[in-house]
Amino acid sequence: MARLTLHPDRLFSADPGERAIARELYASVRDLPIVSPHGHTDPAWFATDEAFPNPAELLIVPDHYVFRMLYSQGVPLEKLGVPTGDGSPVESDGREIWRRFADHYHLFRGTPSELWLNWVFVECFGIDVELDPETADHYYDRIAERLDTPAFRPRALYERFGIEVLATTEGATDELPYHRALGEDDWTGRVISTYRPDSVVDPDYEGFHDDLERLGELSGEDVTSWQGYLAAHRERRAYFREVGKATATDHGHPSAQTANLSTREAEQLFGRIVGRRAEDGDAELFRAQMLTEMARMSLDDGMVMQIHPGARRNHNRQVFQRFGRDKGADIPGPTDYVEALGPLLDEVGNEAALTIILFTLDEDSYSRELAPLAGHYPALRLGPPWWFHDSPEGMRRYRERVTETAGFYNTAGFNDDTRAFLSIPARHDVARRMDCAWLAKLVAEHRLADDAAAELAGELAYGLARRAYRL
Amino acid sequence: MARLTLHPDRLFSADPGERAIARELYASVRDLPIVSPHGHTDPAWFATDEAFPNPAELLIVPDHYVFRMLYSQGVPLEKLGVPTGDGSPVESDGREIWRRFADHYHLFRGTPSELWLNWVFVECFGIDVELDPETADHYYDRIAERLDTPAFRPRALYERFGIEVLATTEGATDELPYHRALGEDDWTGRVISTYRPDSVVDPDYEGFHDDLERLGELSGEDVTSWQGYLAAHRERRAYFREVGKATATDHGHPSAQTANLSTREAEQLFGRIVGRRAEDGDAELFRAQMLTEMARMSLDDGMVMQIHPGARRNHNRQVFQRFGRDKGADIPGPTDYVEALGPLLDEVGNEAALTIILFTLDEDSYSRELAPLAGHYPALRLGPPWWFHDSPEGMRRYRERVTETAGFYNTAGFNDDTRAFLSIPARHDVARRMDCAWLAKLVAEHRLADDAAAELAGELAYGLARRAYRL
Amino acid sequence: MARLTLHPDRLFSADPGERAIARELYASVRDLPIVSPHGHTDPAWFATDEAFPNPAELLIVPDHYVFRMLYSQGVPLEKLGVPTGDGSPVESDGREIWRRFADHYHLFRGTPSELWLNWVFVECFGIDVELDPETADHYYDRIAERLDTPAFRPRALYERFGIEVLATTEGATDELPYHRALGEDDWTGRVISTYRPDSVVDPDYEGFHDDLERLGELSGEDVTSWQGYLAAHRERRAYFREVGKATATDHGHPSAQTANLSTREAEQLFGRIVGRRAEDGDAELFRAQMLTEMARMSLDDGMVMQIHPGARRNHNRQVFQRFGRDKGADIPGPTDYVEALGPLLDEVGNEAALTIILFTLDEDSYSRELAPLAGHYPALRLGPPWWFHDSPEGMRRYRERVTETAGFYNTAGFNDDTRAFLSIPARHDVARRMDCAWLAKLVAEHRLADDAAAELAGELAYGLARRAYRL
Repeated sequence: MARLTLHPDRLFSADPGERAIARELYASVRDLPIVSPHGHTDPAWFATDEAFPNPAELLIVPDHYVFRMLYSQGVPLEKLGVPTGDGSPVESDGREIWRRFADHYHLFRGTPSELWLNWVFVECFGIDVELDPETADHYYDRIAERLDTPAFRPRALYERFGIEVLATTEGATDELPYHRALGEDDWTGRVISTYRPDSVVDPDYEGFHDDLERLGELSGEDVTSWQGYLAAHRERRAYFREVGKATATDHGHPSAQTANLSTREAEQLFGRIVGRRAEDGDAELFRAQMLTEMARMSLDDGMVMQIHPGARRNHNRQVFQRFGRDKGADIPGPTDYVEALGPLLDEVGNEAALTIILFTLDEDSYSRELAPLAGHYPALRLGPPWWFHDSPEGMRRYRERVTETAGFYNTAGFNDDTRAFLSIPARHDVARRMDCAWLAKLVAEHRLADDAAAELAGELAYGLARRAYRL
Repeated sequence: MARLTLHPDRLFSADPGERAIARELYASVRDLPIVSPHGHTDPAWFATDEAFPNPAELLIVPDHYVFRMLYSQGVPLEKLGVPTGDGSPVESDGREIWRRFADHYHLFRGTPSELWLNWVFVECFGIDVELDPETADHYYDRIAERLDTPAFRPRALYERFGIEVLATTEGATDELPYHRALGEDDWTGRVISTYRPDSVVDPDYEGFHDDLERLGELSGEDVTSWQGYLAAHRERRAYFREVGKATATDHGHPSAQTANLSTREAEQLFGRIVGRRAEDGDAELFRAQMLTEMARMSLDDGMVMQIHPGARRNHNRQVFQRFGRDKGADIPGPTDYVEALGPLLDEVGNEAALTIILFTLDEDSYSRELAPLAGHYPALRLGPPWWFHDSPEGMRRYRERVTETAGFYNTAGFNDDTRAFLSIPARHDVARRMDCAWLAKLVAEHRLADDAAAELAGELAYGLARRAYRL
Repeated sequence: MARLTLHPDRLFSADPGERAIARELYASVRDLPIVSPHGHTDPAWFATDEAFPNPAELLIVPDHYVFRMLYSQGVPLEKLGVPTGDGSPVESDGREIWRRFADHYHLFRGTPSELWLNWVFVECFGIDVELDPETADHYYDRIAERLDTPAFRPRALYERFGIEVLATTEGATDELPYHRALGEDDWTGRVISTYRPDSVVDPDYEGFHDDLERLGELSGEDVTSWQGYLAAHRERRAYFREVGKATATDHGHPSAQTANLSTREAEQLFGRIVGRRAEDGDAELFRAQMLTEMARMSLDDGMVMQIHPGARRNHNRQVFQRFGRDKGADIPGPTDYVEALGPLLDEVGNEAALTIILFTLDEDSYSRELAPLAGHYPALRLGPPWWFHDSPEGMRRYRERVTETAGFYNTAGFNDDTRAFLSIPARHDVARRMDCAWLAKLVAEHRLADDAAAELAGELAYGLARRAYRL
């Protein structure tokens, strides 16, 4: 059995000069509280504080980063316990799933998933041997045993991880029962919501019309009229701020297209959509118009707006039909920002009181479009490297391509954007290490002063995210 | 005269820590056999085992990597002996061509061509001075002298180079006489063919209709009907497997577009093409449909499918008209994979028994499209960096952008893809060094365990290519 | 107060081996004369040799690299003294503007602007403390005091900076009074013009028709006819060569689109444009045709042609309406070269006597399109990394992506492309350091011989620019 350890210098440059600087910078930020302003953990965990189920249900079954890699090498999703849409049976023995995972763990070599998982194994569960077929049962037993202890309940972990604030993400028709319960509880953790109205903004979303109807019921507005529909959004945003303590909205669209129609044009467009008479291009135009409407509302109510464009969702038709959304088959494509954001920026781009945080899956846009935009428009900030690019090389490319044009202060700190609660500290640790490594390189090459680097290390780890998200 | 040597640490990082790890990894793979599963050497060389002609005919005249660089600086192709389409005379004195090449050898500084050529000069020909105008004749005499010796015959070089298997590439209407002869010979070298049917699949190919007619004759099928045409492909694929020992097909299309038409639509489309009544878009649609047909056939017959899209062939009209194809004027353009491969992947992307290897000339697609696709679909693997990107920086970019999302095991090892036989070991050596340098960086930064790196070095140099190509 | 110094090893790798090589290479080129073949300084400075105004007017108000960064963080342009189009008042107190700049100087951390500005502070003005709110007045006083001295007059600085030749850029209707005056003066500095006819070539340019009329007056040609219009360009090009000693033209188009219409088609197109009957697409087609016409004229008159495509100009409508052009809101977009340049290259791409220098703001095109094009077509050379990419990381990416395919000799040396006269030596110093760092890496990794690196260092710093621009 090979030993598993986490080297204290991991992710720092091998150059001794750079490494020494990185170590010092990292020592100053390692223990800063975690600000997690965007993610997908389940608020029920914190409201009910129940124990997590078995190791497979915790680490494999819900994580498309993990199961997609095994799937890519021929392991059927059924054998990994991924539930089917029609309820047809899949593997339900956690140990069997875990063994299958262990058999294929070498596939993750060189990936960020391995970094996160190894951190969880060592730091959370105190395991000191590598995961492989021989050690699979040892792992399963050890993790299962720990999950049964009070120290592994969600609230205990939240505290142990040093989390200061954690944002979850809920749809517009969510009543936020768990956030409400948390508000009425005397637990001191801060778990807030984020308003993500995609299912009532994107006419192509499965269940759009049902969700729209539900939006009308919840808000008490007539959502068959354009003005009533906008009022319903305003009502839900207020509800999210009040009950969910939300400070931000989030918008995951296929493209970054925005529009700024006249009221009359918007009314007619909405009429076609709600009346199920949409024509070609109407869905895209409606999503585009709604980004501008949401920006206007943000200017009014102070919510920070996040735009996450560029994923071609559910690219694998068979997998989607059998297993549903979010199964590792969302594939990025080229994403235009310059033309697409024009209408929105014309309307609100010069507002210094507004914060719009842009994300991308198309790294080409970093230096060509996003950094020049964020380096000019007062309303824009750049979100951290996202999804596939939430990784050491992805973070390095982001700093290399963004910093010189946008500077550090037009970026919005780190997001972990994860469903995997246990990976949160591992992900923030990777980001802190990579940012310190980048600052160390600048210092070692005499491109940045020592004192500036020390200040920036704290900003990148903590300050920028807090301010950008108004936390 | 400046001395020419090959430094034992070439291509490794200058950092002493990384370099030491790279040296050790490289020592373990340096002498592994060469698996060359995709290339363009001439099978006649191995079948007839005749001596190569003069140095210019061997190293300059047939190599568009080389003569395009001189052309870009104003040297006419005629003066480099590149044959014209109409037979009008060009320089035929090998020594004159060689001198011209030597006069301009500084143009290759910093290019992979220089790396390969210097390897050939030192390792194959034992030359120890730099090539420049003063040493040109010395070079010419030394190389010519060696080419006359038995040790420089193709089979002797094949053995000296440690080649285990070498794939050539032939068109669908090739009768594979040299592969047949090799099969009947008792030489132990393994030179296999690859089925490349572009000239009977791409209606825009020069001579498409003639080749189609020839395909009918060879296969005995009625290639004026859609079903007969498909049967002819099946027959030729079987012939390539039997006579050419082929394990793979190769498809060089302008785009990665695929289609999945109904049989009736496909018949009608084929009817227009074969009847010379093709409409706008028919050629692209037919190529697209044929990729899906070829994938279906691969699922039946087990041949590995390679897709090489993205070159705008023969961009220089004057050069094409005077000298024909493959003259250094094929220029890449943006290449979409996500939408383009949709129809094919819908049909066969979830088949773990199928292997489709994707290549690109558009490096933007590495992290945005290709790594996410290969990290999900069981049928997909990524080919190595290709053509202009078969170079140290190209290989580094590939590992940096692909590994974190697709892992190492969704890649297909190295291809040399060359017409220049003598460069084959040099190219594999560059790939082995760069891969070891990359692994060494991961180890030095504590992103990969030592034992995993050692195992991966062997996989990247040898194992992955063998398995991906079913050799 | 933190000390401000320029480290002698700045921008070199932290690796001791690479650094030692870089130091030696840099020592050999540091003091070479500056060749500045493309820029936007004001020829009046050198003709009149008057003192520069106050520090804010010199370093902040005219430099969109600087004020855009403050604007992006909410500082109104009015408060930075940027003049409005309608003359409505803005901050006019230089000291107030300077203090505001000092308050936000941390925004430039990690940007090339900080590198250039710190060089100017230390090397030009002998300041040794960092700029921050506390030192703002010290800076202002020191700079203002120096600007009043004879050593800080434009001609004295030109000589102190070691400039050998400096190109400015003027529109087609400029009468070049300052270049004429310089020609009649006995000052030995060489300040030459560049012919930039955008305002009479681009029908979308503000004031196109007025400028066209003025072109007719100046040239004495009938610019309402296509032939007269072309003759007017020929006349102005001759004038620029004679009076402005110009050796080059420059073309800043939204795209790289070229066309090669028949004379009859071109006449009809020009008729619609000049007759204000332009249809959709006519402006783009006219610009496209004019690039080919300009290339033909260059073949006749020997002027080097520069093409700078890809900026979406004046992206911020409000800023444009209030402050006009060049206010930091020009945002790049994806730029195609392969299809776009086809018509021009078909016509003149094989002419070794012609030099066309291509620039890009879309770094994706470096390895995919520009290096393959420049590595083949005799007429093409690649300009240095431009605008946002005139920065350490931008320069590194350029060398990494361009060199292996195009070599060094198909590149055109460095351009500073600046309005900020004082930054010229700083920018050339950054380029020389980054190029030496790149060569040092190649040498340290045994990818380039020592003697070749030494020769290339001089070429990249000096020789290539002189030859490419025929200076």
